Amino acid sequence: MSREFHDQLIVIDALEHSNWDRALFEELRTGGVTAIHTTLAVWEDARATLDNIGRWHRYFEQYPDLITHARSAADIQGAKAAGKTAIVFGFQNASPLEDDLALVKVFHELGVRVIQLTYNNQSLIGSGCYEQGDGGLTRFGREVIKEMNRVGMLVDLSHCNERTTLDAIEASSRPVAVTHSNPKWFHSGIRNKSDEVLRALSRRGGMLGLSLYPFHIGGAERTLGSYCEMVTRVVETMGPDQVGIGSDQSRQWKDADLDWIRSGRWTFSVDFGEGSAAQRSWPRWPDWFKTPADFPHLTDGLLDAGLTREQVAKVMGGNWLRFFADAFRPA
Amino acid sequence: MSREFHDQLIVIDALEHSNWDRALFEELRTGGVTAIHTTLAVWEDARATLDNIGRWHRYFEQYPDLITHARSAADIQGAKAAGKTAIVFGFQNASPLEDDLALVKVFHELGVRVIQLTYNNQSLIGSGCYEQGDGGLTRFGREVIKEMNRVGMLVDLSHCNERTTLDAIEASSRPVAVTHSNPKWFHSGIRNKSDEVLRALSRRGGMLGLSLYPFHIGGAERTLGSYCEMVTRVVETMGPDQVGIGSDQSRQWKDADLDWIRSGRWTFSVDFGEGSAAQRSWPRWPDWFKTPADFPHLTDGLLDAGLTREQVAKVMGGNWLRFFADAFRPA
Repeated sequence: MSREFHDQLIVIDALEHSNWDRALFEELRTGGVTAIHTTLAVWEDARATLDNIGRWHRYFEQYPDLITHARSAADIQGAKAAGKTAIVFGFQNASPLEDDLALVKVFHELGVRVIQLTYNNQSLIGSGCYEQGDGGLTRFGREVIKEMNRVGMLVDLSHCNERTTLDAIEASSRPVAVTHSNPKWFHSGIRNKSDEVLRALSRRGGMLGLSLYPFHIGGAERTLGSYCEMVTRVVETMGPDQVGIGSDQSRQWKDADLDWIRSGRWTFSVDFGEGSAAQRSWPRWPDWFKTPADFPHLTDGLLDAGLTREQVAKVMGGNWLRFFADAFRPA
Repeated sequence: MSREFHDQLIVIDALEHSNWDRALFEELRTGGVTAIHTTLAVWEDARATLDNIGRWHRYFEQYPDLITHARSAADIQGAKAAGKTAIVFGFQNASPLEDDLALVKVFHELGVRVIQLTYNNQSLIGSGCYEQGDGGLTRFGREVIKEMNRVGMLVDLSHCNERTTLDAIEASSRPVAVTHSNPKWFHSGIRNKSDEVLRALSRRGGMLGLSLYPFHIGGAERTLGSYCEMVTRVVETMGPDQVGIGSDQSRQWKDADLDWIRSGRWTFSVDFGEGSAAQRSWPRWPDWFKTPADFPHLTDGLLDAGLTREQVAKVMGGNWLRFFADAFRPA
């Protein structure tokens, strides 16, 4: 019964970063996922990002029955009608922009619609959540946000440090998003967001994508019921129109890939990120959300937690669709 | 008489950034300049910096009678003996390192001996003097300093913001330098250094290179006497062994070059830097120091201001020579 309801929904996952192949795209179809925002860069510079864009175009040619490139909310609706998953391009770091403001428009032309301003460390735009200090948004950062606002690119603040996050919420003339984080009150992980950030985000019309990444929910032992209770509480406090899902699913990466994702080229040591020397590998996911094929469980859980069907439809993707429609429109 | 004294000295200018040609190298010889630290990058990335290194090797081949590449203090002494000017490679920004710690050693292999951590704006290492905020040294910044300490590269803090400067003085296991700035008490320009920075620099064995750039001395009207009085006061407070000259001479650049040096690619507007809309062009230099050919005037001025011959010899280059000998030695 609820699967039938789930299949009617526009389901949008505002962050997936996987080592893609046909099987993973089939998982998305199994989960009834209409669209994902996926990651084309964590430390990559402009040139290396072009490689990743090239790789996606090969995927589009190889798997036209499963996926399609989305440059707009209309493309996401088109994918739903065609029974495919729409792929929205984004960066988890400003590194592809290098120090060149003109590259915002260049990557927009290539279909990039979301840029997270920092990835854990300081970028040329602002401070990441693992930095001790945080000077806030930089001079270049203010120029980049102005240009993203102009061309119609969404500012993502998930991995940003506190002051940089607050500065960017304030500096952006258009609503911004935290695509994949949870409230700190739910779990105190370094990547989760303070009440002050969530209030500022909400006040300025921003979106919060709630994460399912084990380190953001307190581990694989977290129950579906407990997670969905958190979602309902966020819906109550931020309102039903500003909450979505950003699972942070990362499938089929090896431990060596994780070392790159965490340590890039910036250290000769190993940075354990949210892990530790004892838990260096990828974390175990909860049984009720092992892969994106499990998205229907989330629809079930949210209904069980007491959200209305209308609210569930919004949280599962309706809000992201409406928000993307605005955010991706040129000023 | 004093010219004869000047010609005996090791004269080192710890910052010159010019659009070089034969005439400019002849000016250095006319001024009796034994060595300069010159700038290979302000906004350039790794690849563009290789172009600039290539250009210098063409200069070395074209003008072997005038200049020679210096990788060590011994090379500077060799240049003195041969009647040439030694060229020490440096960056005024960390941009050539991109986000890659391994590039410290790579550029060291290419003869780069000085890296200024930031140029006006935020870099991946720290905050520049034109930024409002300053989160201090970043995680990558701490790794870079450790590696520079290891290979024998000098940390330069001239354009860094206050907290980043203090953090770096503290974080570096070897003495650091401010190659081209003045005390703020002499002139309150944004690029000049606070008493707190000068005290910390001095305490940790660092060097201050005093600038002659018009915006750092209060304009072309500053007299030689007034400038040299400042030098003697710095010699009194920091001690005679930690003071040198870093003129910041920048010859033969056009206004369009100045736009690049100030605005790079980070803004579509024009950043006026230390200038203003009303004074957008290169500033006028004082009559007593129009070009590096005027270095003998400085020797005269320092003797007239009451420094001993031994002190003048140190300030004009002896201190930099001793300091470079230590700083350029691998740990």
